Amino acid sequence: MSYRIDCLQYANWSEEIFRQMRAGGLDAVHVTIAYHETFRETVLNVERWNRWFEDHPDLIFQGFTAEDVRRARAEGRTAIFFGAQNPSPIEDDIGLIEVWHRLGLRFMQLSYNNQSLLATGCYEAEDPGLTRMGREVIREMNRVGLVVDMSHSADRSTIEAAEMSTRPIAVTHANPHSWHPALRNKRDPVIRAVTGTGGMMGFSLYPHHLKDGSGCSLRAFCEMVARMVESYGIDHFGIGSDLCQGQPDSVVDWMRRGRWTKGVDYGEGSAGAPGFPAQPDWFRDNRDFPRLAEGLAATGLDGGEIDALLGDNWLRFFAESFGPAADRREARAAE
Amino acid sequence: MSYRIDCLQYANWSEEIFRQMRAGGLDAVHVTIAYHETFRETVLNVERWNRWFEDHPDLIFQGFTAEDVRRARAEGRTAIFFGAQNPSPIEDDIGLIEVWHRLGLRFMQLSYNNQSLLATGCYEAEDPGLTRMGREVIREMNRVGLVVDMSHSADRSTIEAAEMSTRPIAVTHANPHSWHPALRNKRDPVIRAVTGTGGMMGFSLYPHHLKDGSGCSLRAFCEMVARMVESYGIDHFGIGSDLCQGQPDSVVDWMRRGRWTKGVDYGEGSAGAPGFPAQPDWFRDNRDFPRLAEGLAATGLDGGEIDALLGDNWLRFFAESFGPAADRREARAAE
Repeated sequence: MSYRIDCLQYANWSEEIFRQMRAGGLDAVHVTIAYHETFRETVLNVERWNRWFEDHPDLIFQGFTAEDVRRARAEGRTAIFFGAQNPSPIEDDIGLIEVWHRLGLRFMQLSYNNQSLLATGCYEAEDPGLTRMGREVIREMNRVGLVVDMSHSADRSTIEAAEMSTRPIAVTHANPHSWHPALRNKRDPVIRAVTGTGGMMGFSLYPHHLKDGSGCSLRAFCEMVARMVESYGIDHFGIGSDLCQGQPDSVVDWMRRGRWTKGVDYGEGSAGAPGFPAQPDWFRDNRDFPRLAEGLAATGLDGGEIDALLGDNWLRFFAESFGPAADRREARAAE
Repeated sequence: MSYRIDCLQYANWSEEIFRQMRAGGLDAVHVTIAYHETFRETVLNVERWNRWFEDHPDLIFQGFTAEDVRRARAEGRTAIFFGAQNPSPIEDDIGLIEVWHRLGLRFMQLSYNNQSLLATGCYEAEDPGLTRMGREVIREMNRVGLVVDMSHSADRSTIEAAEMSTRPIAVTHANPHSWHPALRNKRDPVIRAVTGTGGMMGFSLYPHHLKDGSGCSLRAFCEMVARMVESYGIDHFGIGSDLCQGQPDSVVDWMRRGRWTKGVDYGEGSAGAPGFPAQPDWFRDNRDFPRLAEGLAATGLDGGEIDALLGDNWLRFFAESFGPAADRREARAAE
């Protein structure tokens, strides 16, 4: 295998960007379809994607299974997988989890920076762990095959989710806190809990998650990756670039504030730099994905390891995560 | 083939009724999931069905394709296909058609008794034909594979739909007006338009659609069916019983009034008989489905014709109707 998967992007989508996915050799991209949207608002985002799928079938199609990634490769297209960075699309209704899975949602964060109905976000002062509904929702996500993503959640909530989930969970986009102590980057006990239970972590190319920000070098990034592989093994890492290509700054403002505050929230930015940070010059868009292979090779990782990191690990995770759990009642019915 | 399909029911669903489907040998049932519900309300009905599918996997599962009917037969279960008797689940949003198709909706009426955004209902005094949005919606339903059902629509709208739809349409549940001149039964030009363009009509066992109502005999019903076969050929008829088993009268009141009036509407009933009429004693529930075969045999129809009428015609129609239309852009992408 040598599949190429980016397990998180939220670009200002256009035919140009879909063409860049092809130019960069991406077989699959996990795209965010909700930050703060309600159920109905998220369905409107699905409708926008359906028009893009209808208008650009030569470039993209919606992915539902790992098999769709292989099909994408065979057909020279990119499979687009849906995810939500907040549980807002299920509102207070656990029944919407199965509905969303049917509509193709494959990742859902239990919280986005703030406390949710399910878990605590990484910007809260206190993290009391998973809520009552959070535990029910994890069980239901496990049942239908919707991946628990804890990228923007707080430590205790994340560790509890990794422990109680009967299927591996993910941190689709973050880097190690030990490399760059950003609030969004993950401390060792969190990384250990996620990867130690079979889960995946995708390394982020978002400047606020990088040591030296926009000035981070490809070499520094790849050396961090190589060190993580040395510490935790090759099997549980991939890329989740968090590429927000072409978005106006009004979007990052909305990502941070949603409808939860009338005030100002700079998130990972600051009063002096409230907007999207500039991408490092070696990862400006999807066309630069192949550069990651070069950078990783320079650290001494071999071809198989590089393939694992750039897509094959995510593909294995997709294959074991996106289908329904073996159900005792189904098994009984089949007897 | 000798499949058994009932192409419309709206019962007060329960494990008992699902067991009766099995006892009656039903391989597939088309069930109504919306009369007046909005998008979100209809999703709540899907959620209820998802719980029934989860709780009774030995009896039922959701059907999406004709192949699922064959699978149902092989596994001794009944495939449940979703339909809407009103376009209310798409509200004013054409993008919801593809979303609903993904969620498994396979039939949608363009109107239910009243004028809708799309077409005229059979209780309106005037029928100006398909609306602007109605024509757009038919094109989109044709594209994704959602069947246009005109059971409760007015004549001109129905004939126009049959003519402009590029794929065969359906009247899932009605009888000929020439046999019993109920407002809901279909006049010959309507039946000719629907069946003449490859469409299907399902004969109804709802007493208001039967000559002599609840007192209609099996023989009279089957002789009507045999006459229709003689006039229009065997290929375009099936059963859509309109069985509303176990529903309280509050439900038929809601079916008629929805939220569109504060007044009284008796629909096919009357002030003296406002509730659900009693079923004829030879078709009380799903267990009586096999009696239809006996009744049809008594009219002289042969085994192959009876199989066609009781399920095989619907199965052929499902196979040609539920998938996406061949798309020029898809074809181009595959080149």
